[in-house]
Amino acid sequence: MEYPKVVAIGGGTGLSTLLSGLKHFPVDITAIVTVADDGGSSGILRSDLQVPPPGDIRNVLVALSDVEPVLAELMQFRFKQKDSYLEGHPVGNLLLAAMYAISDNNFVDAVEKMARVLNVRGQVYPSAAQAMVLHAELEDGTIVCGESQLSQHKEPIKRVFFENVAPAVPECIASIYDADILVFGPGSLFTSVIPNILFPEIREAILASTAQKLYVCNIMTEHGETDFYTVSDHIQKLNAHMGQTFLDAVIANDEEIPAQYLKRYAQESAQPVILDRDAIELMNIEVIASRIADWDVKKGVRHDAIKVAAAVYSRVLEYI
Amino acid sequence: MEYPKVVAIGGGTGLSTLLSGLKHFPVDITAIVTVADDGGSSGILRSDLQVPPPGDIRNVLVALSDVEPVLAELMQFRFKQKDSYLEGHPVGNLLLAAMYAISDNNFVDAVEKMARVLNVRGQVYPSAAQAMVLHAELEDGTIVCGESQLSQHKEPIKRVFFENVAPAVPECIASIYDADILVFGPGSLFTSVIPNILFPEIREAILASTAQKLYVCNIMTEHGETDFYTVSDHIQKLNAHMGQTFLDAVIANDEEIPAQYLKRYAQESAQPVILDRDAIELMNIEVIASRIADWDVKKGVRHDAIKVAAAVYSRVLEYI
Repeated sequence: MEYPKVVAIGGGTGLSTLLSGLKHFPVDITAIVTVADDGGSSGILRSDLQVPPPGDIRNVLVALSDVEPVLAELMQFRFKQKDSYLEGHPVGNLLLAAMYAISDNNFVDAVEKMARVLNVRGQVYPSAAQAMVLHAELEDGTIVCGESQLSQHKEPIKRVFFENVAPAVPECIASIYDADILVFGPGSLFTSVIPNILFPEIREAILASTAQKLYVCNIMTEHGETDFYTVSDHIQKLNAHMGQTFLDAVIANDEEIPAQYLKRYAQESAQPVILDRDAIELMNIEVIASRIADWDVKKGVRHDAIKVAAAVYSRVLEYI
Repeated sequence: MEYPKVVAIGGGTGLSTLLSGLKHFPVDITAIVTVADDGGSSGILRSDLQVPPPGDIRNVLVALSDVEPVLAELMQFRFKQKDSYLEGHPVGNLLLAAMYAISDNNFVDAVEKMARVLNVRGQVYPSAAQAMVLHAELEDGTIVCGESQLSQHKEPIKRVFFENVAPAVPECIASIYDADILVFGPGSLFTSVIPNILFPEIREAILASTAQKLYVCNIMTEHGETDFYTVSDHIQKLNAHMGQTFLDAVIANDEEIPAQYLKRYAQESAQPVILDRDAIELMNIEVIASRIADWDVKKGVRHDAIKVAAAVYSRVLEYI
């Protein structure tokens, strides 16, 4: 039997978490990953080496890799030497930058080669073959330029956009048409998920696809991006960028977050995303409320990789 | 049947060439590699990151690795961006530096982990677990400090030494005692081969070992290191640093180098190493003259990996 084809769309640590769980299930995985990051190590390498931002891709590759644990550890290791150029760069970002040069500046090819080296389960594609510059229009009309700048303001984000849209990677389009289920998120709404649907061909493929369309909503709001957003607010922004409603269901967390974590997040102006079931059902979107949260002192509140993957897999089972 | 145990001692590209040939033969390979380099990428990383110089180890690991060709290519790839800190650093050096940090600054452990990642055939050990500072005493009594400085003078080198000798890596000692055949070189005499025998425990093990002791002499002299050296001159310097004669045989090139290459090397003050057979036999060392040279426009004159390995293997066959 062929495995059901799951295409996961996003970026950042949210998508990686889902994928690191999903690889334990009998599914055929394709990840479509944003290339709009311009902060941190990715931002520096993007600017210094003219390489598409490698960080999101690196996290996804490691999440799907099946190699000596030390190689995965090496990919994620960040040099710690103070005052060194190397400080803060994850080794995997440098490797992807080198692979890009070896591959004659073909990023799709570089990612594919790195996937082979890392014995990656599934396919990983950047949504575009080049770095993209994300812009945001705030509610007051101000335009903010650069992904890393998007949360550095008080005014809420109205929409994000690219000024110059590169072509989407053809393999992304093909995999969307071929998918049994499309999963959006989890991850930062405006900087990880939505950038992937700013490509007209990707939007067109999503709308034309007969796949089940599932959104995995974040557990906590993000300050500067999704302050006070409910689940339906997240969905409405997705719809606004897609140009219409398109989701069949949303997976939202149903587990209570311990008070000590709520306090800590409140200090960073973040709250649990409230599940406003009625508003969602009015949009004709099914609500799958599930206990999918996990937390620890170091990493804070996040999705449990296996639980969120199991929630997605349950949906796969229903519709295949 | 157990494979015969070959321990190859040296550094630089010479040793890597031999090993990349030797891995195709039915032998159990151990490489003992110098850690005295302080030039180029290795020198910069050694100074900036306080890591033992990774370059020689990297070359040896790649020579013995059996992985996706693109991973080997990645290890050897050097960033080309002008004015970037990364310019000129081979990716493998950065990987070894990261692995060193992951391994709590245990270089032997880091090399072993990297060997696993690269699916290395055989064992690779640095001769010491820390960076060593190589000194040279010139014929006029001048002391030169730092491996990369050794060829930057007109006066011939009398001897090389460490001011502070670290302990040799115990695995090196054990493998020497356990060897069926010890192979010295090929490679730069003072900066790749001899630094490994500056450790008293290694000298002691070599002299106590019942293994066949074989020297693979260089094809060309090196300006600033071995100007006008014959084969026996090379051997005499090895003996002088060992404190006595110790070799059973020497493999020397017997193939004529094309005139165009001789001219090119002459411009860099390098000549073919003359095989002075009588002087060697007077030392009671057997001479194995063999057609082991190779040349091309890009890499110049060097050992042919398979031919030099076959010459070593013939000797193994005779004595096992």
